[in-house]
Amino acid sequence: MATVDADGGSHVLERMRSADEHTRRALLSAVAEPGDPKIAALVAEHGALGVIERIALPQPMPELHARLAARLAQANPESDLERVRLLGGRLVIPGDLEWPTQLDDLGMAAPWALWLRGSQDLRLTMWRSVAIVGARACTPYGARIASEFASDLACHGWTVVSGGAFGIDAAAHRGALAADGNTAAVLACGVDVAYPPRHESMFELIASHGFLISEVAPGAVPHRARFLVRNRVIAAITRGTVVIEAAIRSGSLATARAALGLDRPVLGTPGPITSALSGGVHQILRHGALLVTNAAEVIEAVGELGTDLAPVPIGQQGYLDHFDSVTRSVLDAMPSRGVMSADAIARESGLAPTEVLVSLSRLELDGVIRRRDAGWSIVRSAVIGGAPR
Amino acid sequence: MATVDADGGSHVLERMRSADEHTRRALLSAVAEPGDPKIAALVAEHGALGVIERIALPQPMPELHARLAARLAQANPESDLERVRLLGGRLVIPGDLEWPTQLDDLGMAAPWALWLRGSQDLRLTMWRSVAIVGARACTPYGARIASEFASDLACHGWTVVSGGAFGIDAAAHRGALAADGNTAAVLACGVDVAYPPRHESMFELIASHGFLISEVAPGAVPHRARFLVRNRVIAAITRGTVVIEAAIRSGSLATARAALGLDRPVLGTPGPITSALSGGVHQILRHGALLVTNAAEVIEAVGELGTDLAPVPIGQQGYLDHFDSVTRSVLDAMPSRGVMSADAIARESGLAPTEVLVSLSRLELDGVIRRRDAGWSIVRSAVIGGAPR
Repeated sequence: MATVDADGGSHVLERMRSADEHTRRALLSAVAEPGDPKIAALVAEHGALGVIERIALPQPMPELHARLAARLAQANPESDLERVRLLGGRLVIPGDLEWPTQLDDLGMAAPWALWLRGSQDLRLTMWRSVAIVGARACTPYGARIASEFASDLACHGWTVVSGGAFGIDAAAHRGALAADGNTAAVLACGVDVAYPPRHESMFELIASHGFLISEVAPGAVPHRARFLVRNRVIAAITRGTVVIEAAIRSGSLATARAALGLDRPVLGTPGPITSALSGGVHQILRHGALLVTNAAEVIEAVGELGTDLAPVPIGQQGYLDHFDSVTRSVLDAMPSRGVMSADAIARESGLAPTEVLVSLSRLELDGVIRRRDAGWSIVRSAVIGGAPR
Repeated sequence: MATVDADGGSHVLERMRSADEHTRRALLSAVAEPGDPKIAALVAEHGALGVIERIALPQPMPELHARLAARLAQANPESDLERVRLLGGRLVIPGDLEWPTQLDDLGMAAPWALWLRGSQDLRLTMWRSVAIVGARACTPYGARIASEFASDLACHGWTVVSGGAFGIDAAAHRGALAADGNTAAVLACGVDVAYPPRHESMFELIASHGFLISEVAPGAVPHRARFLVRNRVIAAITRGTVVIEAAIRSGSLATARAALGLDRPVLGTPGPITSALSGGVHQILRHGALLVTNAAEVIEAVGELGTDLAPVPIGQQGYLDHFDSVTRSVLDAMPSRGVMSADAIARESGLAPTEVLVSLSRLELDGVIRRRDAGWSIVRSAVIGGAPR
């Protein structure tokens, strides 16, 4: 096993002493894993340069040095920054005007820096944003919902945030893009890495219409651990997370759990209970997540109290809804076909005979019933759809 | 309009003075509509005979007399009781040993009497019972769920309660019958009336394996109002109500509302958000009903606290679940195909070289990785299903 190139680490350290904070954090993002609580604690205590010193030098933290000095020696933050600049991107760090301060809710687990590709202001774009997450191997049903929700959210000025995976992630981005809206992909790899490769052209579209976002340096490849850590950024940067389809152990549930831990609303769209891909969603819906069936309900849950209310869905009106309760009882008592006398109607409905006569006259005027020799009959065409339950 | 046959009403009254309470309430069930709060208040204050007197005589309640005396004159409770007795049935009233006392939770709206067909003890049969309700025009998905839930509930000793309609009601009864379990249909018509007529043979099966139950006298036909009033009996006689499929304005939601008003658990099974027949269920799930995906979850919600717990569903285990976090990071850092050196793994994973070497040795022993000339490679067959998310 090769020994650590201590000299190379020292060389980088020298450069960083005179570098700006962006360059130092760019370096840190290439050396330390995002979401590592030990590193986060050190950054909070000693600043980026202090951490870089502790990685480069064998003392006072020999273990940290042993673990990360090799990476430090290979890192080249100036080149990373230049590379991303050429792609229309930049690094934003806490304190920058466009830093999304809602990330501070992560406390010690907040990112030290975010690599971006995109031309808008990150903070403004994320001000009203919703995460849409779910299974990679989703069903056509799930893809359709993700896409429709994203389109509708985008049409109402909301930014859609997701990962870059196949399935729900891609369907959400495509829905937002189709509506000419804002969409952002938070990646577990560098913003210059197309993973999965087949999404390369989609990522270019996202970069030009919204944002590619990553905590890890350009060129970094995705690991399982990076996906999990990335999920907390999706949860924290948005107002709430919608899970569209997810199996019981789906990774997208990690994003839901992260959102829950941050007191952000967690929403889920149900599916058939016979579909394993809705099993995870049903599980979170059984444990406090809110069921949503359209984008308006999403906006109501994540939007401003009182100003973003969803309309309550109303079913088809039955013909009986137009009448008062006495008139309804009269109509209920009458046969759907055939003739009934007024006193039979009174007996059948349990109403007083005078009440019945008043109702019958009104109904005749409305054209709902017709007077016959032997009594009264209902005009069928007037009452379609009013069968009793 | 015919005048009221006051003499006939008096004649019935004379017979009732010497009749038993069952006969009096049998009469009342033929004359007054169940769930009528005015009648209920009168029964509570004056007893069944007192109410019959007030209906038969023009004073002291001329309006009540005008409204119901015609029905009273035509009623024949002795014949009704005999008719139901021949069908293997009876009338049960509050105070009878088999009266389901949970109906008292309805307060003033509690039934005065229930007509039954069935050979078991009503109270014991209803001790552990669940209502399964839903749309008449259900989908095959809804019918399948209703039937499966009912079968599973019946297999666990629970009585299924529903109406007698097409769709979810019928599917629930058939599921319980198929499992040779108890099922009860609460009807909006007499227990001798087959409505809908096509369910006649199913009603006979239910009568012989469980119960047909009604508040209204034999021969009574169903009205819209009777269906609505009937729903409160379904809600009150059971421990909880499961709504399987229901459109936004479905009548089965009235049963759910009644259960909610009685502090009984209201449960719902979701479906595709694109299905109008799940719209009503999704609406109640958004407003406090509990989402359930199988009978075990139903039993947990309606059963005894702590003794009827549903197993938590678990997904398929990923291969990485078997390893500690260091080992997982090592595997994450390795390419899925090809060879990687130990120091490259250390650099990539951000782990100390010694940690990496210990992990690699263990993984080699487990047969998960293999030593090559240039480093280490993953044994594909050992890790199927472990792709990163």
